[in-house]
Amino acid sequence: MKVQIAVIGTSEANSEEFQAAYFIGSRIAESGAILLCGGQGGVMKAAAQGAHDNGGITVGILPGIIDANEYVDIRISTDMGQARNIILVLSADVVIAVGGEFGTLSEIAIARKMQKPLYGWKTWAIDGLVVCMTPEETVHAALHAAFQLQE
Amino acid sequence: MKVQIAVIGTSEANSEEFQAAYFIGSRIAESGAILLCGGQGGVMKAAAQGAHDNGGITVGILPGIIDANEYVDIRISTDMGQARNIILVLSADVVIAVGGEFGTLSEIAIARKMQKPLYGWKTWAIDGLVVCMTPEETVHAALHAAFQLQE
Amino acid sequence: MKVQIAVIGTSEANSEEFQAAYFIGSRIAESGAILLCGGQGGVMKAAAQGAHDNGGITVGILPGIIDANEYVDIRISTDMGQARNIILVLSADVVIAVGGEFGTLSEIAIARKMQKPLYGWKTWAIDGLVVCMTPEETVHAALHAAFQLQE
Amino acid sequence: MKVQIAVIGTSEANSEEFQAAYFIGSRIAESGAILLCGGQGGVMKAAAQGAHDNGGITVGILPGIIDANEYVDIRISTDMGQARNIILVLSADVVIAVGGEFGTLSEIAIARKMQKPLYGWKTWAIDGLVVCMTPEETVHAALHAAFQLQE
Repeated sequence: MKVQIAVIGTSEANSEEFQAAYFIGSRIAESGAILLCGGQGGVMKAAAQGAHDNGGITVGILPGIIDANEYVDIRISTDMGQARNIILVLSADVVIAVGGEFGTLSEIAIARKMQKPLYGWKTWAIDGLVVCMTPEETVHAALHAAFQLQE
Repeated sequence: MKVQIAVIGTSEANSEEFQAAYFIGSRIAESGAILLCGGQGGVMKAAAQGAHDNGGITVGILPGIIDANEYVDIRISTDMGQARNIILVLSADVVIAVGGEFGTLSEIAIARKMQKPLYGWKTWAIDGLVVCMTPEETVHAALHAAFQLQE
Repeated sequence: MKVQIAVIGTSEANSEEFQAAYFIGSRIAESGAILLCGGQGGVMKAAAQGAHDNGGITVGILPGIIDANEYVDIRISTDMGQARNIILVLSADVVIAVGGEFGTLSEIAIARKMQKPLYGWKTWAIDGLVVCMTPEETVHAALHAAFQLQE
Repeated sequence: MKVQIAVIGTSEANSEEFQAAYFIGSRIAESGAILLCGGQGGVMKAAAQGAHDNGGITVGILPGIIDANEYVDIRISTDMGQARNIILVLSADVVIAVGGEFGTLSEIAIARKMQKPLYGWKTWAIDGLVVCMTPEETVHAALHAAFQLQE
């Protein structure tokens, strides 16, 4: 099975967050891992676009039925609103957070409860989330952890 | 319709947390409001017991099917694990947190995202959660907010 | 714990179905059992009204957040659309179907899969659902099964 | 976006059902569509194997967290038991049923409620499900409908 990495974060990314998520998505694609995201705008869209532009497979776990951004390859239509946050985290081998508000915090909390490796850049400082200094460092550490889990 | 108040918090309460949750549950019952909780142990059980012992109605929104504590009057069997946290918060007019770990943090995050009034005692310090000094103050403020919403 | 009985069925009841569901709800309340329903119109509303008018407690497990009919005492706001059908069936000790279309059929199927006692009047003929001739017979048989389970 | 086709059916397939599902999965892969399934045994496994062996992408929408069969490429870990049936159907452009018991019936009912094109072979005879005579005919008709929807 392939490695699955969730990128979570704000749905209204500023340009710095957008670039960071795009970069992270592109590196995930280059590694051969599958990108999971919430399928909507902001960080979700940037990460999906980064992965898409680099030949990766992107999965959007949607709060609704047809609300995927255009870089989502595989639509999972939950129609469950915020409960899809739980499915997104449970489906990931490793979770990366970029920025984010309360929806992202709910995902970070579930990731910690489920003891998923969790890396973040400019996001909530929660015990057990590995705070990284750059997008490069974040995705590098996350991919390292994910591929180690698979061995 | 009756006011519905969710009490969330640690499933492994110490004696101080247990007493606080019991007190909060008892005051909720005395006010005529319905107590919602996750239906399991610790703070969930203490709050349900407090409400039960004072003639209230208690609802347990369960992660499994039959895993309710003995003070739950109405069992909602979700079989959805942590996704039941979302249903618990959405069903509440007001949320009270007592202690708590990452599951509780996920509920606090969703309560904030949904802009539910949110009061806490010795719990996560998250922007928008009203930190209270005593169990009395916590339940008093929460009930005040809940009954005001209903007017 | 109290007995919990789900009444499922069409959201656009004709007058015969409405009267049947109202009667069934009233008998459930008189027995002291709790009525569970989907919280919306048609059979769900009629059963809730019947229980409400006879002093019972009614629970609406809602597809949305605030979409309960006026006879629902306790709102469970799932925001999960049709997935709330599963929660409704899992939470019931016994299921009663009155009329119904495809949503009801999904609930009947889950009730059968979960081996819940299942009684129906003018509804889908599915192996294992006990077809009853009158609303009286339906609710009588369902209550008998439910209280026997509790012993 | 790619076409997404769900194959649903019994988790304990006999050899005829297994061969039918394998064939259907292989044709889905050859068409370039993505195969969605429940990720477990029987028809789910046969369809995934057929798609996998023919270079397709397979998605398993799991009732648990890690309970995927070995032919699932992308794991969606719902931890929601039967509620994952709803997500599976909502995520599909077209649904194909092969055999099946009550879990399959719940999926057929939801597909009908959501007005998804629905084709079946040796499965439940439900109004609106197109009954096909052979696995070839079933997958041919389903793919035809799916690619027409996309135009």
